[in-house]
Amino acid sequence: MTSNIPLSGARLWDSLMEMARIGGTAKGGSNRQTLTDADAEGRALFRRWGEACGLALSVDRLGNMVFRREGRDPSRAPVAIGSHLDTQPTGGKFDGVLGVLAGLEIMRALHESGAETEAPLLLVNWTNEEGARFSPPMMGSGGAMGLFTEAEVLAKRAADGAVFGEELRRIGWQGEADPTELQKVGAYLELHIEQGKVLEDGGHDVGIVTHALGQSWFEVVVEGEEAHGGSVMAGRRDALMAAAPLISAVEEIALSTCSPTGEAGRGTVGVVEVYPSSRNIAPSRVFFSVDMRHGDPDCLTRMGEALAARAAEVSAARKVTATVTPFWHSPLTPFDTTLVQRARDSAKARGLNYHEMPTGIGHDAVYLARKVPVVMVFTPCHGGISHNEAESITPEWATAGLQVLADAALATAGLVGR
Amino acid sequence: MTSNIPLSGARLWDSLMEMARIGGTAKGGSNRQTLTDADAEGRALFRRWGEACGLALSVDRLGNMVFRREGRDPSRAPVAIGSHLDTQPTGGKFDGVLGVLAGLEIMRALHESGAETEAPLLLVNWTNEEGARFSPPMMGSGGAMGLFTEAEVLAKRAADGAVFGEELRRIGWQGEADPTELQKVGAYLELHIEQGKVLEDGGHDVGIVTHALGQSWFEVVVEGEEAHGGSVMAGRRDALMAAAPLISAVEEIALSTCSPTGEAGRGTVGVVEVYPSSRNIAPSRVFFSVDMRHGDPDCLTRMGEALAARAAEVSAARKVTATVTPFWHSPLTPFDTTLVQRARDSAKARGLNYHEMPTGIGHDAVYLARKVPVVMVFTPCHGGISHNEAESITPEWATAGLQVLADAALATAGLVGR
Repeated sequence: MTSNIPLSGARLWDSLMEMARIGGTAKGGSNRQTLTDADAEGRALFRRWGEACGLALSVDRLGNMVFRREGRDPSRAPVAIGSHLDTQPTGGKFDGVLGVLAGLEIMRALHESGAETEAPLLLVNWTNEEGARFSPPMMGSGGAMGLFTEAEVLAKRAADGAVFGEELRRIGWQGEADPTELQKVGAYLELHIEQGKVLEDGGHDVGIVTHALGQSWFEVVVEGEEAHGGSVMAGRRDALMAAAPLISAVEEIALSTCSPTGEAGRGTVGVVEVYPSSRNIAPSRVFFSVDMRHGDPDCLTRMGEALAARAAEVSAARKVTATVTPFWHSPLTPFDTTLVQRARDSAKARGLNYHEMPTGIGHDAVYLARKVPVVMVFTPCHGGISHNEAESITPEWATAGLQVLADAALATAGLVGR
Repeated sequence: MTSNIPLSGARLWDSLMEMARIGGTAKGGSNRQTLTDADAEGRALFRRWGEACGLALSVDRLGNMVFRREGRDPSRAPVAIGSHLDTQPTGGKFDGVLGVLAGLEIMRALHESGAETEAPLLLVNWTNEEGARFSPPMMGSGGAMGLFTEAEVLAKRAADGAVFGEELRRIGWQGEADPTELQKVGAYLELHIEQGKVLEDGGHDVGIVTHALGQSWFEVVVEGEEAHGGSVMAGRRDALMAAAPLISAVEEIALSTCSPTGEAGRGTVGVVEVYPSSRNIAPSRVFFSVDMRHGDPDCLTRMGEALAARAAEVSAARKVTATVTPFWHSPLTPFDTTLVQRARDSAKARGLNYHEMPTGIGHDAVYLARKVPVVMVFTPCHGGISHNEAESITPEWATAGLQVLADAALATAGLVGR
């Protein structure tokens, strides 16, 4: 089933390009890290756009922005569309932004045509999806779904010492609404770029996401002893020489931990800090982050256990202390079969080449799925490149994703008389 | 031969403890990094102490402080004693400071006893020996010996953006003297803690340093491509997963590159920087420093070649670009046989258990040795721990080192009538 409202892929594309100029980088990407001045500027533009469609804005105590369009039947739970406007430090134009502005395009088309829905519609910009400045990621949606307390989120500190709650107030985007009210939505739909190569390599127009891989994040600290670079090697307890094989082990474990279907895991070390960081001192302390993902929950558990075992081996062999601490976990999350079916129906009706797939990547939708029915729609992205200023998609891909998102959302909310 | 002047090990010790309070850390070390306010405060205290012995101070354009005590024969080249008062960020009380304040104790004893020398005596505090804030190390002595140009040193930048020349003027310690005048000294003697365990483990009172190991420092940059932590592993070009085995290779190469006498090398990676440094992004770029040392020049050359070969292998296997760039080199440096013999004579005459050894560590003396006759004297230090707040020596070790330094220096300068 397709929704017969005047969706404009061109208007969506123009808005994407306009938003990208806020925090725009020399290499064509965007740096609108959460709770920065650029984030505030992006939010203000989005507010103007939403208000121009006659939408009422509410902002909650975690800074989540929620536009509401009333439905004909006030007794029905609202249907929410959303994603995030914040970016990585060297982010692209589409990660997150596409989902928010596709939702805006649906609101614009409804407004323009005067169409009504049975259920109210919400359009959400979640705070701090990226987690680059304040870790962990997806704090706005996680806080709304009750996975973090408000106090916990507001007290988070950035590496530069900034405090989440103070920064949220500084940029003027802490509202009064209770974020947990969002647990009452009847459905949540999110469009996002794939951030992988599966769709492009397969020649697909659109992806329909059936579930989210499990994720386990760890922090590893290796503690040894400083030694001068000119001292003899015997007796050194060099924390970095102990950490290096553990970093390599993260990749080895991901590749070698396979499910019965032969699916391997994913393993990433994104942050490494060395102390005291002087060229002629063997380090006494190394910190690194570990991000492990797998489509099989048992495999994910085994990956974490394998890392802890390797850390114990290295500790014993090198007389250092390597500690692996769980930092964040997201279990394998199935999406809603009815919503998945509505997305599938749309793609079929529009003659799109669609592909059903899991997401290996955390999204606000994955937290929403703990409390409400969810589906995600993916667009391809060139070379799978994301979290990168070179991130790119075609206007055709954006339009296909917009159409499936709109069809599934409006079928769920009940588009009146069409 | 021993010099019969009233040297006081106790007075030296008291001065060491007083200097250590400037930039003193909670863990009992000192943080007097070069060209900081704490460095300025340490310099001011040293000036007061030197002037109290009737010494004339000259400061050169690189901030090197030179006290002069006239000799009876103005035609003779001066004999210089020196080391450095700057420290690592988490430095100890003795690294560098011992050598400067032992020289001061010699000046105090000469002043107190009214003794004269034939040749003038100089006492030098070299700027930025440590190289922790402004890299490379030993800029003051290297600049004086003509290994760096003045302009090059003054233009160096710290990681925080501070410029060497601006910082030198800010703390008020840029003088007018020409640093290259110091190439005219007739001899240079330096006392330093060993920063290794050889002397303590061997039960020696003092070390006499016969030569300096060769050192080669490199910078390694690995460039790949960012990938989201949830993307599949196939096709990733993760710069960190390529850098980790190269970091391990630095240790492997040091241990396996042996001279005909079976001596192995030393290899250290002290600094690692990862970009963009986000937990869920496989890094696109990794920088790390490499410090390689060996007592055999051919072995040192082979170590650098082996690292470049490993970098080429990793680049090909992982489709990344790993570049190894030479950053700094110090060749194997023999010390002066006459000065070594004077130190040996002193240790024998005083009944000290002495040990002849190379230094694996760079010192100002190693640069001086490019231009003038040099010897170094080492004291043991507990556990070989240095560049560390826990660095410690005994007052007896300090006194033994002071005695050998004084005897060799005064035999060289010609102590009148003793």
